[in-house]
Parts: sequence; C-alpha cells; structure tokens
Amino acid sequence: MSVFTHVSEEQARVWLKNYAIGSLESLVGITQGVQNSNFFLTTSLGHYVLTLFEDTPRADLPFYLHLMAHLARHGLPVPAPIADLNNEYSTTLSERPAVLVMRLLGKSVEAPSVKHCRRVGVMLAGLHLAGRTYGRKHSNPRNAQWRAQTAQTVLPFLSAQERALLEAELAFEATMNFDSLPSGVIHADLFRDNVLWNEDRISGVIDFYFAGNDAWLFDIAVAVNDWCLQADGAALDAPRVQALLEGYAAERAFTQAERLAWHGMLRAGALRFWLSRLADKHLPRQSDQREMVMVKNPDEYRDILRARVQAVSVEALSLPI
Amino acid sequence: MSVFTHVSEEQARVWLKNYAIGSLESLVGITQGVQNSNFFLTTSLGHYVLTLFEDTPRADLPFYLHLMAHLARHGLPVPAPIADLNNEYSTTLSERPAVLVMRLLGKSVEAPSVKHCRRVGVMLAGLHLAGRTYGRKHSNPRNAQWRAQTAQTVLPFLSAQERALLEAELAFEATMNFDSLPSGVIHADLFRDNVLWNEDRISGVIDFYFAGNDAWLFDIAVAVNDWCLQADGAALDAPRVQALLEGYAAERAFTQAERLAWHGMLRAGALRFWLSRLADKHLPRQSDQREMVMVKNPDEYRDILRARVQAVSVEALSLPI
Repeated sequence: MSVFTHVSEEQARVWLKNYAIGSLESLVGITQGVQNSNFFLTTSLGHYVLTLFEDTPRADLPFYLHLMAHLARHGLPVPAPIADLNNEYSTTLSERPAVLVMRLLGKSVEAPSVKHCRRVGVMLAGLHLAGRTYGRKHSNPRNAQWRAQTAQTVLPFLSAQERALLEAELAFEATMNFDSLPSGVIHADLFRDNVLWNEDRISGVIDFYFAGNDAWLFDIAVAVNDWCLQADGAALDAPRVQALLEGYAAERAFTQAERLAWHGMLRAGALRFWLSRLADKHLPRQSDQREMVMVKNPDEYRDILRARVQAVSVEALSLPI
Repeated sequence: MSVFTHVSEEQARVWLKNYAIGSLESLVGITQGVQNSNFFLTTSLGHYVLTLFEDTPRADLPFYLHLMAHLARHGLPVPAPIADLNNEYSTTLSERPAVLVMRLLGKSVEAPSVKHCRRVGVMLAGLHLAGRTYGRKHSNPRNAQWRAQTAQTVLPFLSAQERALLEAELAFEATMNFDSLPSGVIHADLFRDNVLWNEDRISGVIDFYFAGNDAWLFDIAVAVNDWCLQADGAALDAPRVQALLEGYAAERAFTQAERLAWHGMLRAGALRFWLSRLADKHLPRQSDQREMVMVKNPDEYRDILRARVQAVSVEALSLPI
C-alpha cells in the first residue's frame, strides 16, 4: 500500500509544464514502500519516479534531496532528483511536497552472493567519501540518543527476558564512544530492498529518508546485519561479511578506533532496528494507522541482537587490515 | 582514430583514487570521435567514459561541463560529468584536462523514423527550456559573425558556381536579424550521431563542445537539416520535419518572429556546416593533421544549402502553430 494520495493524469499533465522533460505519457501508482506515495511517471522524453511525501516535513527535504543530487554528481548510482524550470527539486502536487527522480532500472536481490556483498562495500565507501564534501548536516534521527529514549518507551511491552536483554544492551552501549570514530553522511538504512541491481552491478541505491550524520561504521554495521545474514537465521555468514568489509576497505582503510568499535557497532545497528520495530508495533503513530504500514516483526532483530552479543570472539567479524 | 594520448592502467588506477566510484576494472580506448581521446572506463562500481581534451582550452571547459550537469539535473538524457573528491569536474591525466562522465547506453540511428524525429523535437525543446536557468554564457562559436569571416577564408578554393552560391547566401544572411529571435543555450551540433537511443527512447545526447548561446531556432535548423533528410539526397522529408517541429512545439510554442525566420534559418544552418567542412578541408589546423581528423565532404552541405535555397515555398517547411 503506497499510494495514499491520488494524482489525476490531468493534474500531472499540468504540473509537468514546470519541467523540461516533455509531456505525460503515463502515470502508474507503485504498490511498494510504506511511507510515501510513489508513481512511475513516463513522459515523451523518459522514465521517472514521482514521490509525494506524506509525513516528511518539507523543511527536512532539502537535506535528503541535495544529498541524493550530490552523490549522483559524484558518480554513485543514486536517483538524482530533477530540477524544475525554476531550478527547484521539490514542488507541490495534490497539496503534498512532490519530487521527481530519474527512474533507475534494476531489481533488489534477496539472497546476495559474496560478489554482491563486495560491491555493496565498495558503494558504501564511495558514498561516505563523496559525502565528505556535502555541505548540509542532519543528525542521524536514529542515533544513540534516540535509541536510549525509545528503549524507555517500549520497555513496558517486553517480556522479562527481553527486558533484561535490552537493559544490558543499553548499559553496554553507554560504554561506547562513537565520537572517536570517523563520521560523516550515512545512508543508515542500507537493507537489501534499498539496492537495485542490473546484472551483477548496483544500478540504484534508494530511500535516503533515514540518512544523516553519524559514525560511518554504524552504516556498515546496519548493512552487514542485513546483507550477510545466514539463510536460516540471525547468525552472520563469514565469507559475505569479509567480502563487504574488504570491498569497503579497498576504498577507505579502517582506523584502529573502528577496529575496536566494530563488534559493539554490530550490536548498536541491531538494537536500532529492534527498537524501531518495537515502537512501530506497540506505539504506532497516528499517521502509521492511516497509512496501514506493514509492521515488521521486531523479534527478527531481537534475535539478531542476541546473536551479535553472543558472537564476541568470532574471528570472521574482525575488520580487515 | 580517437585515442591520441595514451593512458596506462596504472595511471588510471592512481587517478581514480580522487573519485568515489571504486577501483579500476578496465580501460578501453574508443575508436570513434575526432577531437578528443575517449575511453570506456569500468570500475568496481560502474561504467563511465573518460575524455582527455586535446584542443579545447581548459578555460572553456567549465561552460560545457556545468551545462551538461545542469541539463542532466533537469532530467534530460545528458551524460553528467562526475565530480571528484574535491568536487571538481575537470582534473588532469596524462598532462591533459580530463573528465569522467556517466556512460549512457544506446546507439545512434542512421535512418530515423517520424517517431524518432518527434522525440528529438521534444528533447531539443527541453534542452532550451532547461537552459534558461543556466548561469554561464558562451557565444556560439559558429555564429553569423564566424560564418561571414570564414566565408572569406574559403572563397579562394571554390569554383565560380560555388562562389556565386556563397556570396549570394552571405548577402541573404546579412538581411536576417537573429537578435529578434528567442535565444539561449543551444547544442548547435545535434546530428544523428550525437543522439543515442535505447529502444525508441533517447538515452543520450552527447558532444556538447559546440554548445553556446544563440537563437534557439538555429539549433532546430541544424537538427532538421540532418535528421529529416530524404534517404537519397539533400531534400527534406516533410513528415519527419513536421514531426520534429510538432514535438518541439508541444513543449515550447514558436513565436511569430521564428515563423518568419524559419526558412532563412534552415539556410543559415546549412551554410554553417558547408563553411566548417570547407575550412576543415582547405585550411586544416595543425592539430587536425596531428589527429588525422577524417574530413567530411563539404559538397554534401553545399547541396543541402542549394536545396534549402530552392525550397522557398514548400508548405511542409512552415512552423506549426
């Protein structure tokens, strides 16, 4: 369910006159995604994706849109937002903030190979390196502070065992010092369904609406926790972990501080998604109800967190030199 | 012949460390094009084209590169130049100004259909409209003044008949007032080989190194003179002319001044290429000899000019309302 706001062909036709990309040929709602209304929009010139933002405050859009433009400009496979004839990325359609981006062809993979994981590492390093010259700042909305606060709101809904896990994890995380780590712009949500592939190349990295500034290593931990899962559970598949980390390290060498923080960061990455899924399940926002968001099972990330906690000494989880 | 400057894989590997696009996988010279050295460059992240500029003064590059970036940003199928880690588009490789652009997939068409011509019209209008917010200016290097000057340098090489044609045409062109026409950034060299197609869509518009500011109608005339030729000669194919003009007019309506100037502009567009081909043949620059430029036959555009002069009253050549 992801067309929450209706757009008529006539509305789109008139709106497109503000752009330099020809006239409307077709407009088709996309039935994926959970937060915004998305459409495939085809004109006499090309193929685009139209997004109407349902919740994102308009004031937050420039950070995301200019970031996508900045990364695309640096050669990364990121959908570039399209400027209208006034040179603006975000305009208004059906009373919503509306953005057109280039449509990137490709499909996500559910069971990534070692090769896929290596390329994800390369891309993530490129994203971090290109982000160094990005001028805008936006604190990671799911940072350590958010995790500590959100934990308090979901604790009442947990079993005794889960509560013990969460409290121990918060105590552990409080001992970590993220400030000593190299940081910059991160995607912060680089799951398999946010990367499109064309043959064995990345053709698109999408959904930048959790991006912000934080430790680069947090981004890597979030990606590894999803891309390198063993098929049957929460444990990591060592060869894919190594491939992703080596792909990354070929472009940017890890620091000693990152090496020391890595295992804890895998736990922080897991905690972040356990908490957000718990909050989505137990404390849905008004807007989530309207949107009939499909709540993802928090238990999956509880188990991933447990598996990371228990994997303290796994050799395969060390960062490559 | 279009690799005039050698680049080793090792040079490319080191140079790529200034970019965020992964590590070199392959570097292959492109044996097309006549002015610069071009390479297909593939990295662990994607496919790019590397251009080393042999002649273009470095000071002229920002106009072209920022124009390509500006048009790509507006959703046009133009290869976006890639910024390096210092946010610069043009750097240095093998002692030449060097630029990476996204590699756009597609092939040019030799025998375009009515449908192709319509899309070219749409694209050209989009290019003109998007160009209105482009901040840099650069006079069309092949403008009316250049035509008048170049004519004098090639006159001695012409037959009596050609000389009469050229002198009459210059006299005619002197009566035209381009200043009254809507103007802006134009591609100025939109031949069939500068447009790539993917199925029936334009996937790439390339070679912006003749772009500049001039009457939009000049751009349209140059395109029509090449895209809408009958298979067997210099005459225009009316259905394709109409398709290109209607495609354009759907995005930007022609003005009355353009309607009046249209026939003369087709002649000016033909004259421009007759003159440059004459100059390339009879007055080659030093650099052209080094580069073994394939000189195109000037007679082709002499005949096109003649055909346009004679086609004064052809109904099909009027601009659509």
